Amino acid sequence: MDLILSNAKIVTMVPGETGYQVSEPKFIGIKNGKIEAISNHPLHVSFGLHEIDCSGVLLTPGLIDCHTHLIYAGNRSHEFEMRQQGATYQEIARQGGGILSTVNATREATEEELVRLALPRLDGLIHSGVTTVEIKSGYGLTLNDELKMLRAARMLAQERSIHIETTLLAAHAVPPEYKDRPDDYIDYICTTIIPAVARQQLASAVDVFCESIGFSLEQTEKVFQCAQTHGLAVKGHTEQLSNLGGTALTARYQGLSADHIEYLDQAGVQAMAKSNTVATLLPGAFYFLKETQHPPVELLREHQVSMAIATDCNPGTSPFSDLTLMMNMACTQFGLTPEEALRGVTSHAAQALGLQHQKGQIQTGMDADITLWNISHPAELSYEAGIPRVAGRVVNGKFTTGNASPSLSKFSTTSSDGK
Amino acid sequence: MDLILSNAKIVTMVPGETGYQVSEPKFIGIKNGKIEAISNHPLHVSFGLHEIDCSGVLLTPGLIDCHTHLIYAGNRSHEFEMRQQGATYQEIARQGGGILSTVNATREATEEELVRLALPRLDGLIHSGVTTVEIKSGYGLTLNDELKMLRAARMLAQERSIHIETTLLAAHAVPPEYKDRPDDYIDYICTTIIPAVARQQLASAVDVFCESIGFSLEQTEKVFQCAQTHGLAVKGHTEQLSNLGGTALTARYQGLSADHIEYLDQAGVQAMAKSNTVATLLPGAFYFLKETQHPPVELLREHQVSMAIATDCNPGTSPFSDLTLMMNMACTQFGLTPEEALRGVTSHAAQALGLQHQKGQIQTGMDADITLWNISHPAELSYEAGIPRVAGRVVNGKFTTGNASPSLSKFSTTSSDGK
Ligand SMILES: [Zn+2]
Ligand SMILES: [Zn+2]
Repeated sequence: MDLILSNAKIVTMVPGETGYQVSEPKFIGIKNGKIEAISNHPLHVSFGLHEIDCSGVLLTPGLIDCHTHLIYAGNRSHEFEMRQQGATYQEIARQGGGILSTVNATREATEEELVRLALPRLDGLIHSGVTTVEIKSGYGLTLNDELKMLRAARMLAQERSIHIETTLLAAHAVPPEYKDRPDDYIDYICTTIIPAVARQQLASAVDVFCESIGFSLEQTEKVFQCAQTHGLAVKGHTEQLSNLGGTALTARYQGLSADHIEYLDQAGVQAMAKSNTVATLLPGAFYFLKETQHPPVELLREHQVSMAIATDCNPGTSPFSDLTLMMNMACTQFGLTPEEALRGVTSHAAQALGLQHQKGQIQTGMDADITLWNISHPAELSYEAGIPRVAGRVVNGKFTTGNASPSLSKFSTTSSDGK
Repeated sequence: MDLILSNAKIVTMVPGETGYQVSEPKFIGIKNGKIEAISNHPLHVSFGLHEIDCSGVLLTPGLIDCHTHLIYAGNRSHEFEMRQQGATYQEIARQGGGILSTVNATREATEEELVRLALPRLDGLIHSGVTTVEIKSGYGLTLNDELKMLRAARMLAQERSIHIETTLLAAHAVPPEYKDRPDDYIDYICTTIIPAVARQQLASAVDVFCESIGFSLEQTEKVFQCAQTHGLAVKGHTEQLSNLGGTALTARYQGLSADHIEYLDQAGVQAMAKSNTVATLLPGAFYFLKETQHPPVELLREHQVSMAIATDCNPGTSPFSDLTLMMNMACTQFGLTPEEALRGVTSHAAQALGLQHQKGQIQTGMDADITLWNISHPAELSYEAGIPRVAGRVVNGKFTTGNASPSLSKFSTTSSDGK
């Protein structure tokens, strides 16, 4: 054993169980990054081993944020200010705002700058108990800039104790160079970007923004076909603003997840159920955009479609890097129960990344990714917001405290008291 | 000088200025807890003095949360779970939920327990840049239990670097002992509780929940009259769920603030303008209760009523302890601008506590309460949520880092590697 967690009250989130099933104090043995044993009795402590007394805290699987756009440059707070002052989207676009401002800033940034700029957002996620983050490209929109974004995303794992999954989202928007020629851009994605990303193994899935203001069903399908040819899983931003049929298409290609899905209908839900595609709810974007159309939660329950919850962290529509706040929003806005919310950021979020056999549960054989909480009841995670309650995280078998405090290094306090 | 903040880009929030007016780098001299000097040139560094280089951060007045119910015992996350599972308020009440469960738990708790239970919530506020917190009683509802709550609130200032203001809210709910006899309870408040609180100087203001499910206009006025007789300022929870006229009444008694005010009409707004009563918006409660009636922000602007923003942190209707999240909610839900939101947690929040001449601005002669932020534009505070961005706080002239990490003390990590 490399690490033992003693006296650990566990919420395992093993699928099929109902209720939280908070365990009596157990002893978790961790070896080579995996959960090796979960026992009712103290485990043998061998030389060189670390043991953490978990009395007084509650353990859940490390939270998984399965949909983010964490890597980008630029600052759109001024655009938010303009919007709140009553500016229209056209006026903001005329002043250089909108997604293209993020694309321009991201293209100009170096890989190292992108890493540095993403760290505060990543620290926000870490403070909310996250141990795995999915990060999409999609603000580069050229081969080199998309590759740069994906490399920067991967580099975050060297800066913090975190597991990173990357997704290619070249089909996020039509870049200025392809203005009014979206089909040509789709060709460029399929002939140039996807093959390079696949060859360099820089992403495990390919995503498309399938929407009237994004890409059509036909264009989406081309990207999906190309992705599968290159052995990459697919997923979609679908049915966010209208019912286009992107979710059913995603399901037809055995998509890992269909995300947003506010406008999804029953046929779409049935298609998801058939293909085991996860419904990823993004309540931060719903809230920030003041949407009123709710995702079909009741239908998803009825057809037993797994629901995940993610931050969608991005500068335009969901500038939020607190995953437990998203749990609260999913409950408050969409009517999820706190238990559904917790599944949505553990076992179901793992499924949305194709990692259901490695992550999202506390069970023997799973990756040792565990969050230790200063709470007494799991529902507190969805109920309250703003309380610092991460007591620590175990990521890939290694324990870290929840508090990365990069802000402090910025300061030089000098005292002139004789020294 | 006791402390110098060098190279400080300041957002002063001095009333009357429009825009943020972010300054060129300045030098702030602090002495005896006050801002003694703000200079364009380096200040003379004398023996024993601490100097903090503020390059790269932005300074605002320390944030003020002017409306909280931070002190209480009990855990209502299970009630939240029931509610999300579809239970009615009646069913929850039958199972011992609702405000009376908080009253019972608070009565049973000792002063020390109340302090300990409030600390995680206070740490949440501190992590969001708060340096002053108003805390109301209102879950004791007996003389001794209300005094206990107010003493516990004051004790928090010994546990953390924070300024505490206390408000008596005995007229929060009718206690079980006075069931169906609200007038008798009002008499008890006026003849027993208010005089004792005034004598012991345990609160600087008296608050009333004036609502159909709270106390009537007549009952509210009795409490206000008694408060003024005892030299205490008044304020009200008014027009939250209906238009009863409590705000105009509060204004008639020169109330410091009228809080919630979703149902306030033009006459009420005019009354506030005349008496300089602050409109305290509580967007967390609006959000959590899924309300649809917005406070009359346009009218408040038109009549130049100062708007404050607060968490209303409480277990029943606003379980949130992040003041910058409330800034985001005030913008997103109520249409405030980020600049209005920042005034709402600085100068206007100070006014809501009668502290406008001491707090809420960075100006010579004011209390040295300052928050140092890892941001480049003030609008970021309202725009993004979840990022840990407090680089430090100056409270009463003393610098502290933003990161109280009480969670860590809970752990004992043992290593058996030979030691
Ligand atoms: Zn997205
Ligand atoms: Zn309140």
